[in-house]
Amino acid sequence: MAEQDGLESMCRRRGFLWQSSEIYGGEAGFYDYGHLGTKLLENWKKEWKDFFLGLDENYHLINTPNIYPHRVLDASGHVDHFSDVMVRCERCGASFRGDHLVEEEIGENAEWMGKEEIEEKISELELSCPECGGTFSEPKDFNMMFKVSLGPTGEKSGFLRPETAQGTYINFRREFRALRKQMPMGLATIGSAFRNEISPRQGLYRMREFLQAELQIFFLPDKHEEVFKEKFEVIKDKKIRIKRADWKDTKEVELCELEGLAPFYLFHLGKIYEFYLDVMELDPEEIRVRELSEDEKAFYNKIHFDIEMDFDTLGGWKEVSGLHYRGNYDLKQHQKESNATLSVPTEEGKKIPHVIELSFGVDRNIWSLLDSGYHSNDRDWLDLPSKLAPRQAAVFPLVRKDGLPEKSREVFKKLEKDFRVTWEKSGSIGKRYARNDEVGTRYCLTVDYDTIEDNTLTIRDIERKEQIRVSIEEMNDVLSDLIEGKKGFEDYL
Amino acid sequence: MAEQDGLESMCRRRGFLWQSSEIYGGEAGFYDYGHLGTKLLENWKKEWKDFFLGLDENYHLINTPNIYPHRVLDASGHVDHFSDVMVRCERCGASFRGDHLVEEEIGENAEWMGKEEIEEKISELELSCPECGGTFSEPKDFNMMFKVSLGPTGEKSGFLRPETAQGTYINFRREFRALRKQMPMGLATIGSAFRNEISPRQGLYRMREFLQAELQIFFLPDKHEEVFKEKFEVIKDKKIRIKRADWKDTKEVELCELEGLAPFYLFHLGKIYEFYLDVMELDPEEIRVRELSEDEKAFYNKIHFDIEMDFDTLGGWKEVSGLHYRGNYDLKQHQKESNATLSVPTEEGKKIPHVIELSFGVDRNIWSLLDSGYHSNDRDWLDLPSKLAPRQAAVFPLVRKDGLPEKSREVFKKLEKDFRVTWEKSGSIGKRYARNDEVGTRYCLTVDYDTIEDNTLTIRDIERKEQIRVSIEEMNDVLSDLIEGKKGFEDYL
Repeated sequence: MAEQDGLESMCRRRGFLWQSSEIYGGEAGFYDYGHLGTKLLENWKKEWKDFFLGLDENYHLINTPNIYPHRVLDASGHVDHFSDVMVRCERCGASFRGDHLVEEEIGENAEWMGKEEIEEKISELELSCPECGGTFSEPKDFNMMFKVSLGPTGEKSGFLRPETAQGTYINFRREFRALRKQMPMGLATIGSAFRNEISPRQGLYRMREFLQAELQIFFLPDKHEEVFKEKFEVIKDKKIRIKRADWKDTKEVELCELEGLAPFYLFHLGKIYEFYLDVMELDPEEIRVRELSEDEKAFYNKIHFDIEMDFDTLGGWKEVSGLHYRGNYDLKQHQKESNATLSVPTEEGKKIPHVIELSFGVDRNIWSLLDSGYHSNDRDWLDLPSKLAPRQAAVFPLVRKDGLPEKSREVFKKLEKDFRVTWEKSGSIGKRYARNDEVGTRYCLTVDYDTIEDNTLTIRDIERKEQIRVSIEEMNDVLSDLIEGKKGFEDYL
Repeated sequence: MAEQDGLESMCRRRGFLWQSSEIYGGEAGFYDYGHLGTKLLENWKKEWKDFFLGLDENYHLINTPNIYPHRVLDASGHVDHFSDVMVRCERCGASFRGDHLVEEEIGENAEWMGKEEIEEKISELELSCPECGGTFSEPKDFNMMFKVSLGPTGEKSGFLRPETAQGTYINFRREFRALRKQMPMGLATIGSAFRNEISPRQGLYRMREFLQAELQIFFLPDKHEEVFKEKFEVIKDKKIRIKRADWKDTKEVELCELEGLAPFYLFHLGKIYEFYLDVMELDPEEIRVRELSEDEKAFYNKIHFDIEMDFDTLGGWKEVSGLHYRGNYDLKQHQKESNATLSVPTEEGKKIPHVIELSFGVDRNIWSLLDSGYHSNDRDWLDLPSKLAPRQAAVFPLVRKDGLPEKSREVFKKLEKDFRVTWEKSGSIGKRYARNDEVGTRYCLTVDYDTIEDNTLTIRDIERKEQIRVSIEEMNDVLSDLIEGKKGFEDYL
């Protein structure tokens, strides 16, 4: 908890993120990203797009609204089924998510439980209101979508989208034509989603408004053994830590050892895993893949893998993304309700394509970077990947006289075109290092009296706290090599 | 209208944009961006950020939610005042915006009119329902915000934000501290805004959900003569086409000839203008600045300039962005309602900072690129700036045999790292040119039999329809020079 408090305080003070509407006392379930948090977010989004849209030439980003009409979410099943089981205290009126009450008591995931199971468990475990000890009313289904009235007389209604995915499904036909009818076809969306959580909690983990990055890949299942077979060949020996639904433990295995899964799924699973290791630079010990059991997964999901991360600040393993094989449930539903033809011609006649979905909770992933990178022992420092860090470098004059500030401005200007860099002159040099350590600035460059003499300066590494001396002439190249990982800091020591 | 139909059809067919929920018959006021439209949008956002955040080291991007609590929008005045005058037909029940009815009759802007003025005008002009000829009921104020219930019992309410600006105001204090109390301080947001338009119309121009890119700059007005004086010096002789509130006509004048405006405002006005000419590459004849009169501007705006563009498809001059001097109205209101101190220390005691706002309707700006770039006479082609075009280049094999497809793939792979490029093999070469002309691909590269012999290929320019022959070795450099404008196509002819 000390760790969490320290990280949250840093995030607030330094411009990463904090609860929304702070001057009004804060609004539960909503977060603002400040200037550093937004840079981290923007960098993450860019890397996500480069990585996942780069998996195939026919994967593309589209952009759809936050509000969908009633009919769309009726067809998708959200109007009828997108609900949590709510129980209310008969004495004090407080509302709770039934599965959370049960989870806290039994220490196991209870998200799969329906009204009946929860009512049974509450009675069996003799649960009472955590606020006042009162008894609970009968559990009810509570739809988590936010409703919106459209038009001057409120004659039409819509919802804030509970997931970005539906926007790609209803545009499948239009894009399939525009993209000249190639399969597989991937449509990605990065945007907001909204869920009226009964009790938002745990910071960026369970929010009422949050960001999703999703890639929906449409394909024909009769081809699924062949599709991406060559692409999978390249990565089939890669190891991942995974727990299958029928395994007791998490094991490290090669992708090709996973039975019963076509190359097409395994390729994407392997790539998601690679993203965590290579782009987000998480430690292999911090992430794992977990296959959901029949009980846990949505009825339309044929395959469901969660990628989980071990959060120091959230008390253990939590889902950060998922790979879901949704079958053709969504397109079939939209075809039925819209009367538009969503099938495509195949050798065996017209077929409705199937979908695999790569789904990332963006805020959770940002939080995982902060959680994993935050160190607070002898000093506070943030270990972020150079490609994602809001600031890659900072430039200081050693003192504020004798031409050093001017010289350091020249250095700053020379760096600014290639890197995310700031220039700071106030406070002692030690304080400036400390300030930058706290926000994860990878490299601090200091202009001192030697700089005036021989045009060299020092570069300090955030992790090693050691310095090297390089010339201003080669400084941009040295930083490039360090940031792109072509060389390590130790190569210059 | 033929022009508009042609452009709209192209946008739908080719993956730029179309009315949302198309397979369900379309939802008025909402638009989807397809794969090409989204690229154009993403490129525009990137250039906007680079340009406007590049104006000062203390200008930063932040990210805030789409939902604000009731209190925030009550303080900002939106709960009481963010309304349009609605009139309803007593016979058929159709609703209309009062000012639009009046505007269509008198041919002048009537947005400033209140309930009384509109009632008077309707009676004076003897207006009746355009749908059925019926008489109108008394005009009413209609609040344009979308309401949202928060929490399981709907005990709290919020709104979808009608503008992104408020998110920066309520975070002013937090960011001012995180950014070490420097003034001026700029906070930008790019995100969605929502207005329940009585009658959404004119495609991307008046939507119920739309994108805004806004930069709010906080400053101390007693310093406004000095702030940015040096920066303004550099651009003070630049010419802009402008109509002041008390001028009859639009004139072309130098920025420094504009009287009564401090360098701080003029600098930002000049930069907005520069963005349109240099980044969006619009013709100077297509844009103008218009100062709003006292009647037209919001009561808290001390200065209000609209930047207007001459749209072929929307029947003339329409606002695409604005520069507003909002005084300290917003921070004062939030200080009053939140009880948080939003003043900052100055030499003359504590003061609440003032704000100038640069506000861009993103969709309108995207539409202005399409409107201005679309040509449909002997052929359909789209003239987009190279930096913004969804595709900068396309690569073709002349025929699908004799190793040309393989060779063209090599070329494609070599280009892919530096440019937005596609590879196409189907259809005749003429058809492939035509398809790419339609979506604004600046350069088409064709691999032919000579390529196999001497490793050269042709580059065709979309505008000139002429070709040059370059070696594969120098192809990336040639394209770079063309796209960055270092050389013109004619230099290679």
